[in-house]
Amino acid sequence: MGGDAGASVVVPGAAISLRRHPDTEFLLFGNRAAIEPQLDRLPALKAASRIVHTDVAVRMEDKPSQALRRGRKTSSMWLAIDAVKRGEADAAVSAGNSGALMAMARFNLRMMEGIDRPAIAAVWPTLRGESVVLDVGASIGGDAMHLATLAVLGSAMARVLFDLERPTVGLLNIGVEEVKGIEEVREAAELLRALNLPHLEFIGFVEGDGIGKGAADVIVAEGFSGNIALKTAEGTARQIAEYLRSAMMRTWRSRIGYLFARSAFKALREKMDPSRLNGGVFLGLTGIVIKSHGGTDAEGFASAVDVGYDMVRYDLLTKINQTLNRDGKAFSLAPVAQGAIS
Amino acid sequence: MGGDAGASVVVPGAAISLRRHPDTEFLLFGNRAAIEPQLDRLPALKAASRIVHTDVAVRMEDKPSQALRRGRKTSSMWLAIDAVKRGEADAAVSAGNSGALMAMARFNLRMMEGIDRPAIAAVWPTLRGESVVLDVGASIGGDAMHLATLAVLGSAMARVLFDLERPTVGLLNIGVEEVKGIEEVREAAELLRALNLPHLEFIGFVEGDGIGKGAADVIVAEGFSGNIALKTAEGTARQIAEYLRSAMMRTWRSRIGYLFARSAFKALREKMDPSRLNGGVFLGLTGIVIKSHGGTDAEGFASAVDVGYDMVRYDLLTKINQTLNRDGKAFSLAPVAQGAIS
Repeated sequence: MGGDAGASVVVPGAAISLRRHPDTEFLLFGNRAAIEPQLDRLPALKAASRIVHTDVAVRMEDKPSQALRRGRKTSSMWLAIDAVKRGEADAAVSAGNSGALMAMARFNLRMMEGIDRPAIAAVWPTLRGESVVLDVGASIGGDAMHLATLAVLGSAMARVLFDLERPTVGLLNIGVEEVKGIEEVREAAELLRALNLPHLEFIGFVEGDGIGKGAADVIVAEGFSGNIALKTAEGTARQIAEYLRSAMMRTWRSRIGYLFARSAFKALREKMDPSRLNGGVFLGLTGIVIKSHGGTDAEGFASAVDVGYDMVRYDLLTKINQTLNRDGKAFSLAPVAQGAIS
Repeated sequence: MGGDAGASVVVPGAAISLRRHPDTEFLLFGNRAAIEPQLDRLPALKAASRIVHTDVAVRMEDKPSQALRRGRKTSSMWLAIDAVKRGEADAAVSAGNSGALMAMARFNLRMMEGIDRPAIAAVWPTLRGESVVLDVGASIGGDAMHLATLAVLGSAMARVLFDLERPTVGLLNIGVEEVKGIEEVREAAELLRALNLPHLEFIGFVEGDGIGKGAADVIVAEGFSGNIALKTAEGTARQIAEYLRSAMMRTWRSRIGYLFARSAFKALREKMDPSRLNGGVFLGLTGIVIKSHGGTDAEGFASAVDVGYDMVRYDLLTKINQTLNRDGKAFSLAPVAQGAIS
């Protein structure tokens, strides 16, 4: 029921993803009257789906506390997460209210052992391909240990998505000079060097302009600056697209030029298409929850489902646990290491 | 002597700015042997300039502490700032080492009364025109009071640059929901509402994607997230320019299209041209210091000189003081107001 359009985007989106991954099965939580007409048009999806009816839906404008009060145990969002908890579903995908989704996911699913707080990871297009950027807004602040666990979570996701043995990890900072950067970020760098984890390669600090260059497979930031970076990049991309559009429509010559170069502009648009990379992954929980943009179309929602599929298929949670443990020693011993180096 | 190219960019840059503002006079600090040949080619500038020779120059790779040790009282950078302090110059403009410039400016010029820490402000191109964004990296962290003084400094600069009576000011945050954002940012919002300053209009929170939309004339952030936002936007702009370039060169048709639309692309390039908006302004000090990008060309350095010219001509420091005082009551009374509302 989530997102700006509800079932009319979510159901066709599921159908697109099913074509790419025919072994998927769907539980569709929400109002049967809204879902069924959509499903009737998509026989392949219908054959692979079961509707779980509920009248209650979290609204986009609900505050997380309201959503929990109104929708706990009854709303489509809660039931979808609960299906993950009970092992009936491998992943939950929602285009609904982000704050409510995070609150319900935290409330119903536990945190993984050794992880203090959840994170949201985004897939960021770069000049080298794609990078995982996290946390883009789940938890604000956090100490060096929190940043190090973000490195663990993000590198596990990069291993799943990019099929890498040992992804490179950079810490978002505002310069490489010793005097710069906040204390937590500097301490996290020392901690990651000291831990020398086998499943990630820590490469040091990355500045804001390094993200788009693809300076590392995984970029780690606490949730405030990570969210600022993500939103600022999205805003800049839209701004330049707007400049480009008005520049191309300005004169007769430029319009003719546009017609000739149409395929090039199409390629550019696809490269910059947010729906291609839709799907924020909630990390740190004992189940897989994917947040799709609320304003996405069916193609975008399908990407979010694809992300969930990959996370299950290539076993994100196991990869996180692998990184948390080294030679049988838990990552939670890290505070000792931190004490030793500070 | 500053920047990647030194006198060969700085001197021609001064000449370009002089053409736009013929009442400017220049003190050129540095190695006479490097400056004089440049100046000989530019008779108008030569007539308006005086060289102040020194052998010592701060190097781009010097740490701030090194620069102070090596270059205090002797380097071209120090002498330029000192000329501002002694009233011989109205503004200092440098393309040199940013950290060293800030350290020397803080060391030699005092902070304005009522301002705790310096800030660097950038002019940011938006879909509506331009906005002032600060702090983009001078001071990390800071409480609500610091953010409120940034609003004062930035709005004074916006009054100078954009000729506005009462610029709008937004606080960079990661959402408008009550539960979101860090405490300092929320407190700063309450403080700015309570102060209700006559020379700025506080409009609330702005997210990262609001900057490029031109959501406010002035965007306030502490230096860490402000720098992340600035660098991420620069990186995204370069990334898209790279995509565009390769898209236009991909096929014969797109190359022909490019030729037809050449003037449109030129307009776009100018719109995105960083040299057009070059010049970070150091705010909060008792003198005006402008930082030009180190890698800029003569046109870019001229923009930085232009910014310095405007700041002096339209009296930035007076405008800051005006905003700090209301009806004779100093802004430094604000902590009382803060206590009253929290």
